Amino acid sequence: MNLILFDPAEIAPPLPRRDPRAAHILDVLRRSVGESFDAGLINGPKGKGTLVGVDEEKLTLKFAWGDAPPPLDPIALVLGLPRPQTARKILQEATALGVRALHFFCSEKGEPNYRQSTLWSTGEWRRHLVAGAAQAFDTRLPEVTWESPLADILVSLPTAGTRLALDNYESPAALSQTEIATRHITASPWERHVVLALGPERGWSARERDLLRARGFALVHLGPRVLRTETAVAAAVAVVKAKLGLM
Amino acid sequence: MNLILFDPAEIAPPLPRRDPRAAHILDVLRRSVGESFDAGLINGPKGKGTLVGVDEEKLTLKFAWGDAPPPLDPIALVLGLPRPQTARKILQEATALGVRALHFFCSEKGEPNYRQSTLWSTGEWRRHLVAGAAQAFDTRLPEVTWESPLADILVSLPTAGTRLALDNYESPAALSQTEIATRHITASPWERHVVLALGPERGWSARERDLLRARGFALVHLGPRVLRTETAVAAAVAVVKAKLGLM
Repeated sequence: MNLILFDPAEIAPPLPRRDPRAAHILDVLRRSVGESFDAGLINGPKGKGTLVGVDEEKLTLKFAWGDAPPPLDPIALVLGLPRPQTARKILQEATALGVRALHFFCSEKGEPNYRQSTLWSTGEWRRHLVAGAAQAFDTRLPEVTWESPLADILVSLPTAGTRLALDNYESPAALSQTEIATRHITASPWERHVVLALGPERGWSARERDLLRARGFALVHLGPRVLRTETAVAAAVAVVKAKLGLM
Repeated sequence: MNLILFDPAEIAPPLPRRDPRAAHILDVLRRSVGESFDAGLINGPKGKGTLVGVDEEKLTLKFAWGDAPPPLDPIALVLGLPRPQTARKILQEATALGVRALHFFCSEKGEPNYRQSTLWSTGEWRRHLVAGAAQAFDTRLPEVTWESPLADILVSLPTAGTRLALDNYESPAALSQTEIATRHITASPWERHVVLALGPERGWSARERDLLRARGFALVHLGPRVLRTETAVAAAVAVVKAKLGLM
């Protein structure tokens, strides 16, 4: 937890001592009354929190806010809904890496039950975004959706920029050899936008491939090695960020 | 487990049914007697295993070997010894990504107790390499060391190629903007070799930075976001592989 993040509604009331952030302030950062720590308002500014008081029940904090951090990177992920344990890692890691949006969909070769996980129904998914942002010293959370079909997601995404789909089977080119529209670096930020689609573990169906191609996606691969989905996400985002000069 | 890997000494004797590979062959792949599966000999060829017999105690297998896979990628990692749970992830993920060597060292700002972990003393570390290779459909395991000091590691590494050290604090350039000696692509493979050094969570000491610079390392960064060590490893290896045209 490099940055301790708060929702706007959490700023005024005291922080319960059983909250993990209270334990972090007292036991990891070892802050005493009068001392301060790096804090952030979710999707808002970064600043300093100061420990004003401690008792058995709660911490009283005050905050001084500075500037808002820069926008997230112009990268959106479209992901076949993976098993919940993989989704947790991807939510946290992709947030730490700075992607702007994650759109999960039930793919034809995927497991539809994954959408019933408590990860999605209880709001747990947001905790992993907050952990990823806190790790990256950022306040901004990406947009996350998991209920739209692939076709609807593709229509909703920006049409400018570059659209790439990772595919171990039918892709003619390596991601590293693919041109990304960075020439427009001084033009609209949308021109630099990259949509990166990753299928589920079992791969894309023929219909999904046709849909991706019809929507302007180039199929690319990450080399001959078979990677776990979360490793492929981190690797592909890193290569795209490097191409955009962001890493 | 995309490829079921065996040590040479395990080929002739039957496979005990309590071995996780036996469970994988019977329960995940659902193979019956006479059916075959993708198998590999660690650091040797890939091929097919065939289930010849099953009883309550053991599986009898026979093997037909094909060609050895290509060598691992010309990338060596030098890593400040991380907490064991992080080291486990790095061992598996870096192996899946295809790095040739991982050299861990006790850094000045690191925690020397990490070397006492059962991860290193019991040989558990090798299990994570085997899991990473099996995931990547490869038989080759990287070289791993964890007992040499940084100075000795740096002397032992190939001197041709590119040497980069990730540093959040004093690095003037982004990894993506750094030239890697890919012009020699048709010359000796060592010319393309990349050594990538990552400090521990708390960063390099001044003396370690001086040592790295004296040994020809350029300090580079991965952008302003603070990444967990395992995420930084995957991201940096991916960017280097992309620059080498391997991803």
